[in-house]
Amino acid sequence: MTQRLVVIGADAAGMSAASAARRERDADELEIIAFDQGNYTSYSACGIPYFIGRDVDEVTELIARTPDEFARNHHIEARIRHDVLNIDLDRRAVLVRARHTGAEAWEGFDQLMIATGATPVRPALPGADAAGIYGVQTLDDGLALRSALERVRPRRAVIVGAGYIGLELAEALCAWNVEVTLVHRGPAPMATLDPDMGSMLIEAMQGFGMTLRLGETVTGFETDAGQVTAVVTDQGTIPTDLVVLGLGVRPNTALAEQAGISLGPAGGIAVDRQLRTGAEGVWAAGDCAEKFHRVTRRPVTMALGTHANKEGRTAGINIGGGYAAFPGVIGTAITKVCNLEIGRTGLGEAEATEAGFDPLTVAVDSTTRAGYYPGAKPIRTKLIAERGTGRLLGAQIVGEEGAAKRIDVLAMALWHETTVEELLNTDLGYAPPFSPLWDPVLIAARMSWQAVSADRMLADRRP
Amino acid sequence: MTQRLVVIGADAAGMSAASAARRERDADELEIIAFDQGNYTSYSACGIPYFIGRDVDEVTELIARTPDEFARNHHIEARIRHDVLNIDLDRRAVLVRARHTGAEAWEGFDQLMIATGATPVRPALPGADAAGIYGVQTLDDGLALRSALERVRPRRAVIVGAGYIGLELAEALCAWNVEVTLVHRGPAPMATLDPDMGSMLIEAMQGFGMTLRLGETVTGFETDAGQVTAVVTDQGTIPTDLVVLGLGVRPNTALAEQAGISLGPAGGIAVDRQLRTGAEGVWAAGDCAEKFHRVTRRPVTMALGTHANKEGRTAGINIGGGYAAFPGVIGTAITKVCNLEIGRTGLGEAEATEAGFDPLTVAVDSTTRAGYYPGAKPIRTKLIAERGTGRLLGAQIVGEEGAAKRIDVLAMALWHETTVEELLNTDLGYAPPFSPLWDPVLIAARMSWQAVSADRMLADRRP
Repeated sequence: MTQRLVVIGADAAGMSAASAARRERDADELEIIAFDQGNYTSYSACGIPYFIGRDVDEVTELIARTPDEFARNHHIEARIRHDVLNIDLDRRAVLVRARHTGAEAWEGFDQLMIATGATPVRPALPGADAAGIYGVQTLDDGLALRSALERVRPRRAVIVGAGYIGLELAEALCAWNVEVTLVHRGPAPMATLDPDMGSMLIEAMQGFGMTLRLGETVTGFETDAGQVTAVVTDQGTIPTDLVVLGLGVRPNTALAEQAGISLGPAGGIAVDRQLRTGAEGVWAAGDCAEKFHRVTRRPVTMALGTHANKEGRTAGINIGGGYAAFPGVIGTAITKVCNLEIGRTGLGEAEATEAGFDPLTVAVDSTTRAGYYPGAKPIRTKLIAERGTGRLLGAQIVGEEGAAKRIDVLAMALWHETTVEELLNTDLGYAPPFSPLWDPVLIAARMSWQAVSADRMLADRRP
Repeated sequence: MTQRLVVIGADAAGMSAASAARRERDADELEIIAFDQGNYTSYSACGIPYFIGRDVDEVTELIARTPDEFARNHHIEARIRHDVLNIDLDRRAVLVRARHTGAEAWEGFDQLMIATGATPVRPALPGADAAGIYGVQTLDDGLALRSALERVRPRRAVIVGAGYIGLELAEALCAWNVEVTLVHRGPAPMATLDPDMGSMLIEAMQGFGMTLRLGETVTGFETDAGQVTAVVTDQGTIPTDLVVLGLGVRPNTALAEQAGISLGPAGGIAVDRQLRTGAEGVWAAGDCAEKFHRVTRRPVTMALGTHANKEGRTAGINIGGGYAAFPGVIGTAITKVCNLEIGRTGLGEAEATEAGFDPLTVAVDSTTRAGYYPGAKPIRTKLIAERGTGRLLGAQIVGEEGAAKRIDVLAMALWHETTVEELLNTDLGYAPPFSPLWDPVLIAARMSWQAVSADRMLADRRP
């Protein structure tokens, strides 16, 4: 008998699951139908800032597969512009409304994949719903902002929040010759970096012409006829033509909650290693689902396309009757702002302490190539190690060309729960065009191990 | 009582050992004296091709520390232009000759560090000792070649051998507008790559103007008045003004052998994890010493500055009374030729078979950035996995900008004896300027795991 898989949300997690399930089961064994509120399937959400900044010309370049391609090549039906209003676990059906007609219908399922994603946090502040205030999460959001830029040609913009999206959009708006002001509550951009590393970004961003207002909290928005005209903070008023919110995202869990599907302690849908929710035959993956953090050993939410794709693939294999497990995350993330590349993995100093580790950190300045080789650029590598054992807990890199992807080596080391002592002797590639003889990563490991050893000797001498 | 450490060879391994020993012991506890045949201490041998190609202007840029700096800052006496002629283990002394005076003297030691390096292989062929035939290993070799280029301004050059040095020097000579011909016995450049990966280099090198003569064996050299005039092969005669040998190097073990210190099966000086030789108080490190290969579990020789530095550091800590162990190597190496970057780690396909593994390989074409992001370049990643278990055995990458250092992630995975299944779910960094959503490394792991799984299913079905 043919089974039916219903997928809610037709982007990274949902369509990865659909595709992986299809590879396990032919269309005569498994019917697959996916619903999405928006106008697109399977697009690169991480590419949106580069579409807004016009590094990418056409929105179609961000789309990996259209509904037509899913239908033709994979026998997967993707219905865009459809809202799923309700999940009924007893009836094993979802209530769906077609946006263009308003027609509602119950669609039955044997298996249900929840991939509802996340929504940008919109602060509960006066004026926060005004026109001209943009949150950027979906491709439709991205199109709305780019068309506003083309239409309004704003002179000034304020970015609220200095995380990945905030920084990437700040750079994108600079490409439109917009005067960009970043307002951020913390002492340095990028709260996922330790402040000593984040502060390296300030000079680069100012040099690029951005205005940074750090340690400043937004308290509201001034509006005129429903249109935002200024951002109000605890320290002043910043007139603006456009606001972009970069305050992070919240998992979309309302549908699941209303159906009685359990959330976890981090506020996402609780799932096991196979991406099963607490409800029989119901799976969840991507931004709406919790992930196991391998270093803290706690569930977290983390809205990243890489996790969404891998989790979707894992769920799809299991839905199709195969076996796959998602082993969890370690918090690796990279980006660039102006001429600086940024990478981080594992725990920051404060996170490590909060998770019950006693961290010991070193930060080392080096170069991306041999010092004598043309084009060598500065790079700073910070390692967070556990006092006593020297276990690697986290790493952060800020530097010019060639810096960001170096974090992958440290991510791989962290993944395997290595110590900085073992790390320092690892056999990494070396040639003068690509690194100093001691790669920055290995120098940092050597320094970190020296710090751990010295600390141990001191501890031994204490009475 | 003050002990005395004598170091033979004052480059990477020797001076790393000296420096590490000094950090453990002050000058009143340990006197350190190093001898070197050449004119320089602690230089970047890997930088020599870039000095020859004039990416690096001055030879001094390649020197990390001069004898003066060692004396002043580290109380290490480095005597350059001194040959060590003999090691007498019973007398615990070495016989040293000063090149400038010819004077010989015995120098006593408590500890002896042998860091005699390696010498380019010079084939036993007619004319191989002619003037104009260069092997490039030491900085003095590099200076000799560069001064020949400046003096002779050769129109044509032949490189014999297409390994790292051969390729790097081929590119360096192109920078002098020399017509470069590469003669190589094998079917593709870079024998440390599998032929299918090595063949990717051919087009790039030809496009750069080099002539490649593959599958061709050098049988001798024609000379005129002691000066080389042509390279003779089994397929013809190649007139030339200059020849560079890129046939690899041989560990310099004669001194150790003559003293009765044991060599290992790979032909280098046998050492343990702490870099002890078989003789009490005698240590060896760098190109002259064997290394443990963590994948084949056999000793190998491998002339790389990275190993030399780490081994030297390890030996020096132990000589100074601390404890350190060198965990071995996995054969990671990177370089560039023309517009292509090359990385490899672990075992190639043939090496894996030779070591007793049953390998299964995949090669995957991808891009260095998200496909839609400006500047995305092609990159091919090959993984060698163990049939049945899916254990990662080796990896090779060839591609444009950003390709080479990606091998480090695979090196780190290999170091930790992971499987391609575990690898495919690893949490690596992603942002469109730096990789596709599925990093090339992860795509390759996914494909490799699919191949291993499919092969297992087939094996299960066999009667």
